[in-house]
Amino acid sequence: MTGQEMFDRGMEIRRKVLGDEYVDKALAKSGPFNEPLQELVTTYCWGWNWGREGLPLRDRSLINLAMIAVLGRENELKIHIRGALNNGLSKDEIREVLLQVGIYAGIPAAVDSFRIANEAFAQIDAEKSDDS
Amino acid sequence: MTGQEMFDRGMEIRRKVLGDEYVDKALAKSGPFNEPLQELVTTYCWGWNWGREGLPLRDRSLINLAMIAVLGRENELKIHIRGALNNGLSKDEIREVLLQVGIYAGIPAAVDSFRIANEAFAQIDAEKSDDS
Amino acid sequence: MTGQEMFDRGMEIRRKVLGDEYVDKALAKSGPFNEPLQELVTTYCWGWNWGREGLPLRDRSLINLAMIAVLGRENELKIHIRGALNNGLSKDEIREVLLQVGIYAGIPAAVDSFRIANEAFAQIDAEKSDDS
Amino acid sequence: MTGQEMFDRGMEIRRKVLGDEYVDKALAKSGPFNEPLQELVTTYCWGWNWGREGLPLRDRSLINLAMIAVLGRENELKIHIRGALNNGLSKDEIREVLLQVGIYAGIPAAVDSFRIANEAFAQIDAEKSDDS
Amino acid sequence: MTGQEMFDRGMEIRRKVLGDEYVDKALAKSGPFNEPLQELVTTYCWGWNWGREGLPLRDRSLINLAMIAVLGRENELKIHIRGALNNGLSKDEIREVLLQVGIYAGIPAAVDSFRIANEAFAQIDAEKSDDS
Amino acid sequence: MTGQEMFDRGMEIRRKVLGDEYVDKALAKSGPFNEPLQELVTTYCWGWNWGREGLPLRDRSLINLAMIAVLGRENELKIHIRGALNNGLSKDEIREVLLQVGIYAGIPAAVDSFRIANEAFAQIDAEKSDDS
Repeated sequence: MTGQEMFDRGMEIRRKVLGDEYVDKALAKSGPFNEPLQELVTTYCWGWNWGREGLPLRDRSLINLAMIAVLGRENELKIHIRGALNNGLSKDEIREVLLQVGIYAGIPAAVDSFRIANEAFAQIDAEKSDDS
Repeated sequence: MTGQEMFDRGMEIRRKVLGDEYVDKALAKSGPFNEPLQELVTTYCWGWNWGREGLPLRDRSLINLAMIAVLGRENELKIHIRGALNNGLSKDEIREVLLQVGIYAGIPAAVDSFRIANEAFAQIDAEKSDDS
Repeated sequence: MTGQEMFDRGMEIRRKVLGDEYVDKALAKSGPFNEPLQELVTTYCWGWNWGREGLPLRDRSLINLAMIAVLGRENELKIHIRGALNNGLSKDEIREVLLQVGIYAGIPAAVDSFRIANEAFAQIDAEKSDDS
Repeated sequence: MTGQEMFDRGMEIRRKVLGDEYVDKALAKSGPFNEPLQELVTTYCWGWNWGREGLPLRDRSLINLAMIAVLGRENELKIHIRGALNNGLSKDEIREVLLQVGIYAGIPAAVDSFRIANEAFAQIDAEKSDDS
Repeated sequence: MTGQEMFDRGMEIRRKVLGDEYVDKALAKSGPFNEPLQELVTTYCWGWNWGREGLPLRDRSLINLAMIAVLGRENELKIHIRGALNNGLSKDEIREVLLQVGIYAGIPAAVDSFRIANEAFAQIDAEKSDDS
Repeated sequence: MTGQEMFDRGMEIRRKVLGDEYVDKALAKSGPFNEPLQELVTTYCWGWNWGREGLPLRDRSLINLAMIAVLGRENELKIHIRGALNNGLSKDEIREVLLQVGIYAGIPAAVDSFRIANEAFAQIDAEKSDDS
């Protein structure tokens, strides 16, 4: 597979997981300084990793929520909560992940992650009512 | 539920996930200084968290491997690789988790975690041949 | 002790450390999604851990400030600075903790934590003048 | 060398790296609570560490960007991007550092750091047009 | 105060906290490559930080155990458990710190830290019986 | 560029930085379970990242030492100290990096990293005398 083919595969998965509207907005904001970052993220993260067959998208979302909550990367956590819903996780399953984060990475990680999850859910609900 | 009932529920799940032989050995090594730690781990981690219904044990193993690999806690990672196999994850699925750790938490986290996984698999295989 | 008794003990300590006004506000904001988080935090963190006899509340605040500053969890740090003052630590003692964070976890952790401490002190002072 | 001489050496380097305007503003905001932090930062970090001869300022900026991006300390990262430009790193070299952060500390660390870098560049550009 | 005076003050506190025998051994092992590290640690960490008056040595040990356990730096944790005992903390108080680490930084951090504490206690007990 | 070409470019750089002997040993130990990890590391880390033109190998080693020391990944740190020497950094320059790690990520990170550096230097010296 060429780098371009891997990039294309990654872009397809990225759009499927995060939604066209979200990805279009992210790309529009991203200028030339960010080009190699976009290449890295789309090709390796979305194309190579998310494109592998060994785990379904739902399971990849499970482990991503856990890892990003532990790392304390709140912007990325919000994006991947959106992705987790698109990949078929319910709000209650997301909650279970974040509770387990509290046990294995400590209460402050859980409290912060619940705050982010609530913000993400509110934002997504607001977008839905805008559409209707 | 009383604290004792939660402890008992936790001990049952802990034995189911990690195996009686492993848990018996861990408890035998653990003296009076560690008693409140054993209470915390069994009650809160195994009873309260692993005993919740919202996610199956297999999914809890998935996210645990991811979190513990990110945190760089190698002894715990080895124990939970054993648990993951008992909870029905295949070696190939465990590998997918650790590759994704490499993307989201960096290459050194993946390299260390693969080393631990190889050690865990070798140890478990050795125990099996001891039994036969 | 039942889970409910442990929860009640935790709620009492939580109110003593953080103040009724603060806890009432936090509970009012917290909807049904957060219920199991509230249970976890109140029962295990405040009831089980803070309710243990081996260390006075003042010492538990000391180590909490240090840990949360190292973890970079700024919202929680602000809350626990309030708790530390309520538990009898002076501003100067809090400062010593944060300087030591700088030595053992690096200058950026200290700089961020001093910023949060200044914000917390200003907020608490403003609340006091609102009351008068 | 006395502590005062080390402080003075540190202040000189700090002003050279971050610019007088920036340092003056930082010192003006910093009240008596922060005095020992200022002493620590200026004497040991800027005087002792940055004042050592074994690496040029440019190289110290390279490694600082990498470390602070890994640690997820965004305020400090923004300040040290300014310093890196003053120490002779180009925007393209800064980008290479942040891409390598993505490989060794994970994609979320890179995405957050690129966002901070873009904000820092925009702020510095805005200051330049204010001056003209 | 000159750098040399700060170094001397640091060496005195370091010896008081960790014991002459331990410090002599550490210095004997440390060759010329480590000289500036010894200078940094003794002057800045032991002289400047531990030499400040705002907190007693016992309290500095409390927060150090918490921080170093969170950071997962096991060699340093073992050394500072020795220091904590010398500074007047009991084994039971050390245990309380490490349980609280489990709540705020997660169960794996507590499990690893208890293992280190048990090793440290065993080592210190063995040294005592060698002396008698 | 195809994935295979990127892999080949990565393998060439990896061998140049870490040495044929080291890479041959690593590959010989690595069985089929590790194959996708080898693909990830060689293609993405060594081919894509280290193969970019924006920074010379020496500068990439500088920032790698800093990042890996901060992350506390000791096996990888030892490997990259070998790589740093091959890329033209002197022992004294490596020391400066690790001292700066102490300032920005805390004393325990520096103490651990100096220990690893000393071990790496001793190992490399021993290999050299084996060759002669």
